[in-house]
Amino acid sequence: MPLLVMKFGGTSVADLSRIENAAKKVQREVARGYDVIVIVSAMSGETNKLVSFVEGTSKLYDAREYDAVVTAGENVTAGLMALRLQEMGIPARSWQGWQVPINTTSAHGSARFVSIPRDHIDQKFAEGFKVAVVAGFQGVSAEGRLTTLGRGGSDTTAVAFAAAFGAERCDIYTDVDGIYTTDPRIASKARKLEKIAFEEMLELASLGAKVLQTRSVELAMRYKVRLRVLSSFEDTDENSGTLVCDEEEIMESKVVSGVAYSRDEAKMTLVTVEDRPGVASAIFGPLAEAGVNVDMIVQNISEKNYGSHPGAVTDMTFSVPVNQVARAQKAMEDARSAGLINYDELVADTEVAKVSVVGIGMRSQVGVAAKMFQALSSENINIKVIATSEIKISVLIDRKYMELAVQALHDAFELDKA
Amino acid sequence: MPLLVMKFGGTSVADLSRIENAAKKVQREVARGYDVIVIVSAMSGETNKLVSFVEGTSKLYDAREYDAVVTAGENVTAGLMALRLQEMGIPARSWQGWQVPINTTSAHGSARFVSIPRDHIDQKFAEGFKVAVVAGFQGVSAEGRLTTLGRGGSDTTAVAFAAAFGAERCDIYTDVDGIYTTDPRIASKARKLEKIAFEEMLELASLGAKVLQTRSVELAMRYKVRLRVLSSFEDTDENSGTLVCDEEEIMESKVVSGVAYSRDEAKMTLVTVEDRPGVASAIFGPLAEAGVNVDMIVQNISEKNYGSHPGAVTDMTFSVPVNQVARAQKAMEDARSAGLINYDELVADTEVAKVSVVGIGMRSQVGVAAKMFQALSSENINIKVIATSEIKISVLIDRKYMELAVQALHDAFELDKA
Repeated sequence: MPLLVMKFGGTSVADLSRIENAAKKVQREVARGYDVIVIVSAMSGETNKLVSFVEGTSKLYDAREYDAVVTAGENVTAGLMALRLQEMGIPARSWQGWQVPINTTSAHGSARFVSIPRDHIDQKFAEGFKVAVVAGFQGVSAEGRLTTLGRGGSDTTAVAFAAAFGAERCDIYTDVDGIYTTDPRIASKARKLEKIAFEEMLELASLGAKVLQTRSVELAMRYKVRLRVLSSFEDTDENSGTLVCDEEEIMESKVVSGVAYSRDEAKMTLVTVEDRPGVASAIFGPLAEAGVNVDMIVQNISEKNYGSHPGAVTDMTFSVPVNQVARAQKAMEDARSAGLINYDELVADTEVAKVSVVGIGMRSQVGVAAKMFQALSSENINIKVIATSEIKISVLIDRKYMELAVQALHDAFELDKA
Repeated sequence: MPLLVMKFGGTSVADLSRIENAAKKVQREVARGYDVIVIVSAMSGETNKLVSFVEGTSKLYDAREYDAVVTAGENVTAGLMALRLQEMGIPARSWQGWQVPINTTSAHGSARFVSIPRDHIDQKFAEGFKVAVVAGFQGVSAEGRLTTLGRGGSDTTAVAFAAAFGAERCDIYTDVDGIYTTDPRIASKARKLEKIAFEEMLELASLGAKVLQTRSVELAMRYKVRLRVLSSFEDTDENSGTLVCDEEEIMESKVVSGVAYSRDEAKMTLVTVEDRPGVASAIFGPLAEAGVNVDMIVQNISEKNYGSHPGAVTDMTFSVPVNQVARAQKAMEDARSAGLINYDELVADTEVAKVSVVGIGMRSQVGVAAKMFQALSSENINIKVIATSEIKISVLIDRKYMELAVQALHDAFELDKA
């Protein structure tokens, strides 16, 4: 029997009528002949309520007890979904993480999968059950304690089950109807993509398109799990939404698939750093230890000769999330006090945004960067930092031009045209 | 290390500040040198919310999924209680039913204990943990599904743990400060009992004193678990509340310990039933099958000789909860249609109440019934049905006299005096 994994997020199961609506989508797939594994999140708002209980009880809480409390949300939805499916005449039952068991590491709050044995669920399918409803976001450690996977964990659960059970596809039902060439709230011409490659989705997810968690896309790419993102709130059929798949499945891809952005960035520049071997690790080591997420890094190789710095010097520029600027500043000052590095000044520009174009077609196509810079230039947008990878080009610009830049790039690469 | 079981009901853990208050009571016992097993209910209102979700999803719900959903309430409280105790510096952890494991039968919604292995919790105590917080009301079946014990199940969980772990005592924290000679809302002279025997408590519990569930008292009696009922909302010490214990611990007991009542009773009389061997089972068999809880049964042996009934006939009177009258009527009519019994009429008096006096001293004391009837008679209260057991005498009377009867009996047996 072909098997599908279907995942419903918190807004898709927010109340009993939405659970019923989701169950109807499951019913449709069962009618088509699929066995289905349904992964559910907590009803929207429930997890936040449970987290507030935990934080109201203990500031520096024991993560094991946190996990024991918050997993209750998904367990409730799983039972209710199974009941609703039974009410529709579909043989179904719920599984809590420990019942499967979803074996994870003991890293409470951010556990990783160890194994998902198939035997219990396979046996139920063999007995005639059509649907296994599994509580997302959770697992059980070797010590027998409940664990959670961290934010977006239910997407990851869905992909892991699709991989473990060799599912034909993993459908992620959410509150948007697919992946767009860019954010439709910013560029009205944004177009829904029919297909997108894993690598592109990964760049878009980590660049700020919040539809799918990075970790679930990574897992899908590793195990070649075909992901479909589609809406819980619309009538959907086998062609709805966006398929995230291997690039081989995408016949003719455009050079650029999408434009991503990230609003809350800061550009930091260490002015007049000694330019010697090991200086980069002397800077970025302390930043990593302080938990600062450094994204783009640019070193302006130069040979200045200041009175106070007789040797070779350079400027080092990097970007961080704007809310980590203070932490980065402290880490740099501490490193200077400890004699690890030397610099004249640390300049922070907290009014920048990042805009990126992404596309696997870039690999074989020249001139993408030139076209991007040209489009920005024609709008008089100054580029502050540039960083590139195999399939993306990112720039930092003044935040006030962010929307304009997204629109200009969307037009320049003709993303509104299929 | 001596061990205590402490149980906190829903109102005692209704919000974070009440959980903190309960945790302070646990802290006090730990400071006295006890290892403690804490049994918690769901935060008050939570179970009802979860039940309404289930009933809103499926009318004839799968009891296994019902159990999977409603157990979430106790799991949340258990985690929060463990966190609060940790916050106070007390080594504690939570246990969900399946983690202990609390092995039960597969009778979902009304499961019974099979075994409570001590090894996991004992090991934690040996490692220096002082408190094991266990989610009440739940267990796990041999099939690995979550089960619940039915109403009042957390009291039963507490007693079962006290028995399994040889606890010195099982303290039931609730919203009253002990067991009274009668309901203080009805008789202002009602007095809190220092001690009460298991047998007496059992009669009081099943007769309408709602403090402890019958099943938990039965279990306590069987395993000689000393139960203490005391208030969550008052300062308590080692002498607070009421101790429910073996009668041997009660030095000098009064003849009557308490007056119980049950307001919503109905008296039903089958008029002119054939008086032949087997007629009682022909009546009460169908009632039991229909799920009617018959309480008192009185047969007026008589030899009437009606035209339509040439043989010996009798009247059969029994009492049922007032909300089961219609069901009882239907069961009787069906039995008559099926030719199982014959009767002229079924008369239901739905305006009656039951009042009972209870006391282990009755066994060795004559004249208790006479004193009871005298007290009621002097208030001009007519007795409709009388039933007696070794340690109690119950009467059915018109409901409008119920309060008056309780007060008169409380006075007659001088229950206000210690």
